Amino acid sequence: VSLGEFDLIARFFSRTPVRSDVLLGVGDDAALLTPPPGQALVAATDTLVEGRHFLPGTPPECIGHQALAVNLSDLAAMGAEPAWVLLSLSLPAPEETWLERFANGLYGLADLHGVALVGGDTVRGPLVVTVEVLGFVPAALALRRDGARPGDVVYVSGSPGVAAAGLELLQAGTADFASNDERVRRFLFAEPRLALGRALRGIANSAMDVSDGLLGDLGKLCGASHVAARIDLDALPVAALEHAYTRAECERLVLRGGDDYELLFTVSPAQAALAEEAATASGCTIHRIGALVAARETNASGSVTCLRNGQVVPGKGSGGYDHFAG
Amino acid sequence: VSLGEFDLIARFFSRTPVRSDVLLGVGDDAALLTPPPGQALVAATDTLVEGRHFLPGTPPECIGHQALAVNLSDLAAMGAEPAWVLLSLSLPAPEETWLERFANGLYGLADLHGVALVGGDTVRGPLVVTVEVLGFVPAALALRRDGARPGDVVYVSGSPGVAAAGLELLQAGTADFASNDERVRRFLFAEPRLALGRALRGIANSAMDVSDGLLGDLGKLCGASHVAARIDLDALPVAALEHAYTRAECERLVLRGGDDYELLFTVSPAQAALAEEAATASGCTIHRIGALVAARETNASGSVTCLRNGQVVPGKGSGGYDHFAG
Repeated sequence: VSLGEFDLIARFFSRTPVRSDVLLGVGDDAALLTPPPGQALVAATDTLVEGRHFLPGTPPECIGHQALAVNLSDLAAMGAEPAWVLLSLSLPAPEETWLERFANGLYGLADLHGVALVGGDTVRGPLVVTVEVLGFVPAALALRRDGARPGDVVYVSGSPGVAAAGLELLQAGTADFASNDERVRRFLFAEPRLALGRALRGIANSAMDVSDGLLGDLGKLCGASHVAARIDLDALPVAALEHAYTRAECERLVLRGGDDYELLFTVSPAQAALAEEAATASGCTIHRIGALVAARETNASGSVTCLRNGQVVPGKGSGGYDHFAG
Repeated sequence: VSLGEFDLIARFFSRTPVRSDVLLGVGDDAALLTPPPGQALVAATDTLVEGRHFLPGTPPECIGHQALAVNLSDLAAMGAEPAWVLLSLSLPAPEETWLERFANGLYGLADLHGVALVGGDTVRGPLVVTVEVLGFVPAALALRRDGARPGDVVYVSGSPGVAAAGLELLQAGTADFASNDERVRRFLFAEPRLALGRALRGIANSAMDVSDGLLGDLGKLCGASHVAARIDLDALPVAALEHAYTRAECERLVLRGGDDYELLFTVSPAQAALAEEAATASGCTIHRIGALVAARETNASGSVTCLRNGQVVPGKGSGGYDHFAG
């Protein structure tokens, strides 16, 4: 397959790598990289499809930012430090302005975190963006989904639900992509919680990033760790939303919303104070929203129960997850 | 974005990793891997789009094979040993039979080379397959595109053009995907030249894999190394084609055909015998097809000239590359 005009794309993604551990970057059959000795290599990939992961008409800067952010968020959730990125871009046609803006969005976030684009592929096809990110973490300190234990305190970072609120504004036509509304900016340019992830190394028992909504993702974490969770609805962080939404709407956004790249993690009670200090030092607020309990029955593994005033709220746990879908 | 039914896909790609250097594979936010000390990490990614990189109706086994093969070929061209793979799959709908067959094609080739699938992403969208492969090579022994020198002998491995002939049979309807014709099998299940790439470590001055056609790719290698090439048309390997094609057709297929995953490489004359021995020991035939000369003018860098009986053939070098396109 001849790349032809696609060769010109290369120039948008050939900025000199910002890292000395890149022996050979874009332009050969593969990149040559120098991993630091004594650490585990961490690798993740995520794909964005127009109409599913970003709205038609989304500014290219936002797509470039988001394609990298969702991957950096995966590394944040492992407590890892990102280093190198590869980009696979399927595009209907190489449109120069689009490419330049996309590259600016991607490099803007990459530069912020000292990450180098070292390779990739560009092909003609439907608009599909895949990014692969590579980084490091000392193996024993990696934050995994399967390390949670009964008794652990459940935390979520920042203000989950704000990006989902921004998405709803865009979908409703109440705001456009240029809006300065904090919710819209957050949806379009969410920041992965890399500093928090690293700060939680050796402190958190388990972690993951919230991509499909807090409730569903907590269910996955519990499933991987064979525990169950109890969430206190009164403890949900709604400060960024309550000025504009009813309590029920706030809870829906916080429990269901993705796209914030917040971290969900669990900590043994003895380490809770340390986790809160570490989070503050990393510049991130965290919120204690519940606790883990033993999963006594096999089929209860992964289940999440919601409480209000100490009482179980029927139909709102992970079993009632789909009720939020409408 | 809720994965919903896409979660079921995971089970097709969750086979237990075949390598002990996988600390954590599919199922967490990222994979945790142990690179061997003292080697460079090699990373490549390639994307396949239906209708561009594979024909509509292509058996899923072939797509799975090809998605991995094209990436392994990039590592072969670096002289690297592949280890780990990530898969991003955008699919219109999760169809169980399709997924199982695709996975069989991918794992079949992965198992052959001891490569482990350690992570990925599956999303709903147009059929687009992206694979990222990671491997290793001692940094000083990596085969790069920019190491070629004037005077180097130019080699190509195996039988370039056979896969392209197979593609033409399929496009013409002369053969179908189930055909046992060697050309069709080669197009659908080409084998990356990993053993040859490793055998050429420390021997070849430069290498790349042939993906866009020998002539165009040699032009890229020359461009990266600031040299020019002279190809002897009489020396082209046409043994696998000449029973069925005219001389002109053979040359077109060999010079223009991609999809064979053959290696194109250059060796200093003093190392040529060693290269030929190493190739034979790796189980691969190689063919001496020309030599490199200095690029005296800046704009001659990357140019390829074709000779027949020692005479320049007008319009057939890289300048005449597009003439083959029709």
